[in-house]
Amino acid sequence: LWDVSDALLHTLEVRLGARGLLRGDQIGERYAADTSRLHALRPGVVLRPASTGDVAFILAACHAAGQSIVIQGGLTGLCGGGTPQPGEFAMSLERLTGIEEIDPAGLTMTVRAGTPLQTIQEAAADAGLRFPLDLGARGSCTIGGNISTNAGGNEVIRYGMARALVLGVEAVLPDGTVVSSLNKMLKNNAGFDLKQLFIGSEGALGIVTRAVLRLFPQPLTHAAAMCAAPDLPHVIKLLQHLRVSLGEGLSAFELMWPNYVQYITSQCADIHNPIDSAAHILVLIEFEGTRPDTDRATFEAVLHDAMTAGHIVDAVLAKSDKEVDDFWRLRDGIGDVAPRLANAAHFDISVPINAMPELVDGMTAELAQAFDGITLLTFGHLADSNLHLVAATGNSADLDAIYHTVYERVGTLQGSVSAEHGIGMVKKKYLHLSRSESEIALMRTLKAALDPKGILNPGRVIP
Amino acid sequence: LWDVSDALLHTLEVRLGARGLLRGDQIGERYAADTSRLHALRPGVVLRPASTGDVAFILAACHAAGQSIVIQGGLTGLCGGGTPQPGEFAMSLERLTGIEEIDPAGLTMTVRAGTPLQTIQEAAADAGLRFPLDLGARGSCTIGGNISTNAGGNEVIRYGMARALVLGVEAVLPDGTVVSSLNKMLKNNAGFDLKQLFIGSEGALGIVTRAVLRLFPQPLTHAAAMCAAPDLPHVIKLLQHLRVSLGEGLSAFELMWPNYVQYITSQCADIHNPIDSAAHILVLIEFEGTRPDTDRATFEAVLHDAMTAGHIVDAVLAKSDKEVDDFWRLRDGIGDVAPRLANAAHFDISVPINAMPELVDGMTAELAQAFDGITLLTFGHLADSNLHLVAATGNSADLDAIYHTVYERVGTLQGSVSAEHGIGMVKKKYLHLSRSESEIALMRTLKAALDPKGILNPGRVIP
Repeated sequence: LWDVSDALLHTLEVRLGARGLLRGDQIGERYAADTSRLHALRPGVVLRPASTGDVAFILAACHAAGQSIVIQGGLTGLCGGGTPQPGEFAMSLERLTGIEEIDPAGLTMTVRAGTPLQTIQEAAADAGLRFPLDLGARGSCTIGGNISTNAGGNEVIRYGMARALVLGVEAVLPDGTVVSSLNKMLKNNAGFDLKQLFIGSEGALGIVTRAVLRLFPQPLTHAAAMCAAPDLPHVIKLLQHLRVSLGEGLSAFELMWPNYVQYITSQCADIHNPIDSAAHILVLIEFEGTRPDTDRATFEAVLHDAMTAGHIVDAVLAKSDKEVDDFWRLRDGIGDVAPRLANAAHFDISVPINAMPELVDGMTAELAQAFDGITLLTFGHLADSNLHLVAATGNSADLDAIYHTVYERVGTLQGSVSAEHGIGMVKKKYLHLSRSESEIALMRTLKAALDPKGILNPGRVIP
Repeated sequence: LWDVSDALLHTLEVRLGARGLLRGDQIGERYAADTSRLHALRPGVVLRPASTGDVAFILAACHAAGQSIVIQGGLTGLCGGGTPQPGEFAMSLERLTGIEEIDPAGLTMTVRAGTPLQTIQEAAADAGLRFPLDLGARGSCTIGGNISTNAGGNEVIRYGMARALVLGVEAVLPDGTVVSSLNKMLKNNAGFDLKQLFIGSEGALGIVTRAVLRLFPQPLTHAAAMCAAPDLPHVIKLLQHLRVSLGEGLSAFELMWPNYVQYITSQCADIHNPIDSAAHILVLIEFEGTRPDTDRATFEAVLHDAMTAGHIVDAVLAKSDKEVDDFWRLRDGIGDVAPRLANAAHFDISVPINAMPELVDGMTAELAQAFDGITLLTFGHLADSNLHLVAATGNSADLDAIYHTVYERVGTLQGSVSAEHGIGMVKKKYLHLSRSESEIALMRTLKAALDPKGILNPGRVIP
């Protein structure tokens, strides 16, 4: 079935042992696709290195043999980047796990790439600290995958994306060279910042094997409110007000349009809208602070000012952790509902904030006119320019046209066809709408320079 | 004198006109070196493009002719990166200036690379906002230079280095290709993040011509204190305490050792030590907040807690802007004193914070023992791992040995020989102490891929 060299397989088996190399029936369905489950294909060989040295050995051998490899972390991606293509070996980093060091003075943690995100969060918490990267897949995604895809998630407004949380990486180049840049300093301008090559390039330029992460103190207080705003321009004014009044304490600013709120509450009997009106845009706001004696009063006063100024028409402050959870269940309800929507297009797009009203209004009108009975669920993060949209007609023949309609509008507004999920295989054909020819050519130059034989995650990202 | 092609010069003169191309006596001394003034050499030709198109034209022509070019911003660098080498044309971006757009909702500013930093700070302030990159050279350094060198400065602890403040760049590659990635979104994972190639690579991979910068709200309050700590381990505990209690409001944490304070106050009659003791490490702390009614009381309480815990033995809160300025004059006094120290070695190094006590103690003892009558001035930022040191013996023959002594210790502690100033020409020979062979080889791979003829800032950064 697979056109691979017996000599290469023998070499790898000797190095990796029985646990390190799976073939045929030993290979479970989990290695066949990422969470998109698009074009699932069980690979013929799964390599499971247990050390950086193993990864280097595998790549050197595959490079010499011209054998293509796809890298798999937690396989929680949504763009098919980790899904094997015909003829590829899969390399899973699931054995390359563990936390090597926590430095409370320097606020750093050194980890191996296969470590699940949640394990890292918990280890930070055990040390009285915090690793603030967080996303729904925390239990199964790995830090190596988070770094390779520059993951975003729930705290980007305050802490930035994965790139901002990484001080150093160790990576293995496609030819097996180990480049160890495990820097622990916030300031280091000794030559090019090589880690940037491996963050967010979806494993196309090298495999991250270890990383030094930034840790932060735990906040001493937190509060949440659900607010209702009359329209998007008022939401933008609300955001400006909160940034001035709460500073970096503003840790979440999540938007839900009426179409989203109505659909989620109608589908999920245990999820409710805490605001006594279905006509407004809901904004879920979180505030994290350092002053237990005054933070709640400050938060209330700031929201009161927002109401006086007319940015919002109503606000409900959570009075308990249970109420905070209830607010988030409305926001996270999409996770339950989305899989049940047949033939839905899922968008993860961004545009400059001042183009957001034009995007939402124009897109909504155009889709409603073009597709009879379309269901739209509109929600997003706004503060980091990120909008999510689910569009379902129930007719699979509509999907391509829906994708083109939205992505072309995003391109016109100089936005991004992928705010946080990456490109992988699935979004390659839309990349030209967000990137110029010269940008894509430069991506090709980098790929050719670092992976001249094109063996590492071939065909991903670059059209 | 210069071995250049008349045809190339003619081509450039036709495109750039008389203001855009200077030769011979038209060329002032300012083009001969950066602020280090090391190895000054007046270039034979200075090119002064007024647009991105001009920059692209120049590079395409020079690439075709194999003509080397050195790029000059504000020439405030300290590592010789902008100083012409024999045979090089100089290209100054001094005409490529101006602010193109400020977007208060998206908190972005789009600027041309030759714009002075201070102009950008003032334009942000005029819009009621803030661009938080700040360094002593603000009046003459340019944003293009700041980006190319990933400048640090006074607010790194809160806002990060230049890299963290740039959302998008337009750059011209060594062959004249314009790569415009003027992204305005916090979230954009559509392919490789190409701007990272040009940030901090000191112009070796391309010339930044425009950029989209991040803006922030202005803080509503600010306060400053000078504290005295018994030793460095207590200073580290103080830092941990402030990070927990003040969060991101902690905006400066500047250290001055007794040797520094005694020397500066003895040399500058108008600079005083506000603490009634010469035996302690001084820590200048700034706090920026959003709550005019409670911030000062919070700051006082947090410092009081630090004293109760024994992290500090004394603290003086500034009661006026004048007192804040006085605190900073002690910290900035090095700027007046350093130029008067004959034959001094100037260090800009970083090590992981928990290695800092070992670095300072070991380095001080070793230098004092090896060099009779050496004067050491020790100061730094700590929170971002950055230590500055001035070491003077008055004997130029000692300099090489002093540099080697310190840099080798930094390398042993896995630190950086350049925390914020970059490598340029001057620090190339020490780069191997902070970077492995495989890291330097990867820098060479990138340089060869983007600048195959080696015409752009040749010989800088990479040994």
